[in-house]
Amino acid sequence: MNLFHRVALVPKLGLVLLFTCLAAVNGSAARPPNFVVILADDLGYGDLACFGHPTIRTPQLDRMAREGMKLTDFYVAACVCTPSRAALLTGRLPIRSGMAGTEKRRVLYPDSEGGLPAEEITIARALKTGGYATACIGKWHLGQGQAHLPTSHGFDEFFGLPYSNDMDRIPSARQADTGSLNPRYQDFNVPLMHNGAILERPAVQTTLTRRYTEQAIRFIHENKRKPFFLYLPHTFPHVPLFASPDFKGRSRRGLYGDAVEELDWSVGQVLETLRREKLADNTLVVFTSDNGPWLVRNLAGGSGGLLRDGKGSTWEGGMRVPAIAWWPRHIQPTSVSSDLANAMDLFPTFLKLANIPLPADRVLDGYDLSPTLLGTGKAARDIQFYYRGEELYALRQGPFKAHFMSRDGYSKEPLQQHDPPLLFNVAQDPSEKYNIAQEHPDVIASLRAAAEQHRAGVVPGKPQYGH
Amino acid sequence: MNLFHRVALVPKLGLVLLFTCLAAVNGSAARPPNFVVILADDLGYGDLACFGHPTIRTPQLDRMAREGMKLTDFYVAACVCTPSRAALLTGRLPIRSGMAGTEKRRVLYPDSEGGLPAEEITIARALKTGGYATACIGKWHLGQGQAHLPTSHGFDEFFGLPYSNDMDRIPSARQADTGSLNPRYQDFNVPLMHNGAILERPAVQTTLTRRYTEQAIRFIHENKRKPFFLYLPHTFPHVPLFASPDFKGRSRRGLYGDAVEELDWSVGQVLETLRREKLADNTLVVFTSDNGPWLVRNLAGGSGGLLRDGKGSTWEGGMRVPAIAWWPRHIQPTSVSSDLANAMDLFPTFLKLANIPLPADRVLDGYDLSPTLLGTGKAARDIQFYYRGEELYALRQGPFKAHFMSRDGYSKEPLQQHDPPLLFNVAQDPSEKYNIAQEHPDVIASLRAAAEQHRAGVVPGKPQYGH
Repeated sequence: MNLFHRVALVPKLGLVLLFTCLAAVNGSAARPPNFVVILADDLGYGDLACFGHPTIRTPQLDRMAREGMKLTDFYVAACVCTPSRAALLTGRLPIRSGMAGTEKRRVLYPDSEGGLPAEEITIARALKTGGYATACIGKWHLGQGQAHLPTSHGFDEFFGLPYSNDMDRIPSARQADTGSLNPRYQDFNVPLMHNGAILERPAVQTTLTRRYTEQAIRFIHENKRKPFFLYLPHTFPHVPLFASPDFKGRSRRGLYGDAVEELDWSVGQVLETLRREKLADNTLVVFTSDNGPWLVRNLAGGSGGLLRDGKGSTWEGGMRVPAIAWWPRHIQPTSVSSDLANAMDLFPTFLKLANIPLPADRVLDGYDLSPTLLGTGKAARDIQFYYRGEELYALRQGPFKAHFMSRDGYSKEPLQQHDPPLLFNVAQDPSEKYNIAQEHPDVIASLRAAAEQHRAGVVPGKPQYGH
Repeated sequence: MNLFHRVALVPKLGLVLLFTCLAAVNGSAARPPNFVVILADDLGYGDLACFGHPTIRTPQLDRMAREGMKLTDFYVAACVCTPSRAALLTGRLPIRSGMAGTEKRRVLYPDSEGGLPAEEITIARALKTGGYATACIGKWHLGQGQAHLPTSHGFDEFFGLPYSNDMDRIPSARQADTGSLNPRYQDFNVPLMHNGAILERPAVQTTLTRRYTEQAIRFIHENKRKPFFLYLPHTFPHVPLFASPDFKGRSRRGLYGDAVEELDWSVGQVLETLRREKLADNTLVVFTSDNGPWLVRNLAGGSGGLLRDGKGSTWEGGMRVPAIAWWPRHIQPTSVSSDLANAMDLFPTFLKLANIPLPADRVLDGYDLSPTLLGTGKAARDIQFYYRGEELYALRQGPFKAHFMSRDGYSKEPLQQHDPPLLFNVAQDPSEKYNIAQEHPDVIASLRAAAEQHRAGVVPGKPQYGH
């Protein structure tokens, strides 16, 4: 058995040498890291193999999780698309930027005049001050006028859709079921844009994931000698669902699975490009989703796994999303963190890692997540606010979550007010099944006070959606 | 970058040499493999980190899955304990052995006179014909009389409980809630047995998992020079829940999580023992559960993840269980299989791998799973029967599952007959939400015919539970 021991030692020594060597070659201490955010659209908490889905195959995301960190308690700031993305990019609650929306218009529509206001600072704009190259490749959904497009918000370039792929329906498709398992892209007159110009209309949605991926790889190749920020918000698995011929009909989960499996392929392509360009050790990649699964789309919608409800609701399934962070040599492989985290945390985390000061003239709602990611401690976040539009419906502090009001994501059921609030311990009861309000009046009082303090301190921004 | 390439090559060469060397030393081609079956009790499909649970930490089982195969469509033959175990050990549907139970007595109780009949052949008895050492360490639940204990069924030794840990309640605890999060082991006068003798009564349940683990390690040490079969059916996370002081209060999931995390530790100890004894490459280890989570036990019960219902029901949550297979150098690391599989398949699979002929005098319901495990093809199983007691409630063939009747696991709701049957595509719709009977009369007809053919062919064994 001597051979065993000798052989086993070699890789260990080799790795130490290798790491030392790479660090010297890349000079990674001097150069700030690159950042890549890959955002799925309407992907549910239960829709990846590494988050427990039985039939959707996601070998690339599973590998990303094995090489990095799975975040089990990662949230978004809103349960629908536009406000969730505004928060991710600005590190601020949508209510502050005027991007929270209303019950009538929860997201921007093609006829909306507004968008993310000019005074908001996106991750891209902040990183530009540190010399970063920046690109938004994918679905924007923060305003379609020139003043609101990514190129007006710190992105050097934009390739993608200005809003959701189920919008701009042609007149004969007004009644079309977007949850169809056999949709026609011609029914959705959505433009594919490059910077401010329309490249293609209707966008040929079947090849969008592939084309986003090609653009992402090109951007990495072109910018491999600078620090860069790549924001890659995919169009799918938002309905209507499309997959390229290589993926159509491949998944045992059906069309929804085809779309997710193509997304998984895309993630693999991006990571492989980073490896090939020797950028892996200097690039932090975060994969997540903008909100929970759109359950009312039935088989064309995803699964929240064991979480309750989905997109549009402030139940866990609406706002807790799958998340994976990857940064070889910095994030411990196969790690799992249940630290409370939020997509808004990416803003201060990236700025910290890039050694760029935070803007001092505004309230930020994100916390530096790097202690969690780097394994040096616990991030400071202890609270999650669950907004629907401009209303605070629920609040989580530590393991306890109080619902002051609730409403299903998309059903016609009326708003329910809860007094006393419903109380769940979501660490013990992630499915929010057992209301423990009676047993914990102290916790209720504490969460009520936190909510009141928060409400009293928030200055709502002027609503920005236009009409 | 030359260093990179040279260093990277060494482990590859090293591994090849190492494997060749180990094969020569162990003579693994000549010696049949060892088998270890680790069975959790009432563990749900969603209760492991690698199956998507957010707060239960299972690093050892996650590692086992990374080093081996996750099976996503692995079922048991019954939705409660006794018949499920009878099927696992005999490779036969419980109805054939008379072990299916009735609606009134679904499992054996301490006053039951019967048990697994003498003429049934367990995996242990079959492997003994090949010179295997055998042990059952854990909960038996196939009859407590001497004639029915493990030592009468091919096991050289037995250390554990004869039945479930919530039985034999002392008179003052008759009304005790077994779903308590602060139970007393003294309330359950359950015996801990060694072979035919009672070692301890009431069993000190807090240390059961630790003691099972110590016994398992001892058994492996003592039998490392022979082929062996270790059947390790843990007592937990069946209620009442206990964990040893090292684990009590450790899990963010609460007491249920404590029990599962101690189980995870135990799995790690077993695998580490196999590695240290250089037995890993010659030992197939299968981890699974006997049925779904006992949902009516609330926080003391587990989670079926995205599956519907739990223990006691023929919905997916009752009978689809988490499963991991591990056999270094034989099973591809990080593999995931959605081949239809059943705990009954272990019997023919083990016998095949041990080169022992199958009994020719009886019907077997298991299929050789080795093509799936070894990656040489697809196992022959294409059907899953969902029995509740002696009644066939549902049937899955390929992705389609028809419910001829249904009933919640433990609620008082009456039996529902379905004509036409409910039909689900459980590959596309694992949560059984969208009945597609209307769209697929052909599939309904085919599943009906398969059910009728099966019912007509089954000869029920004489009921064996006694009164």
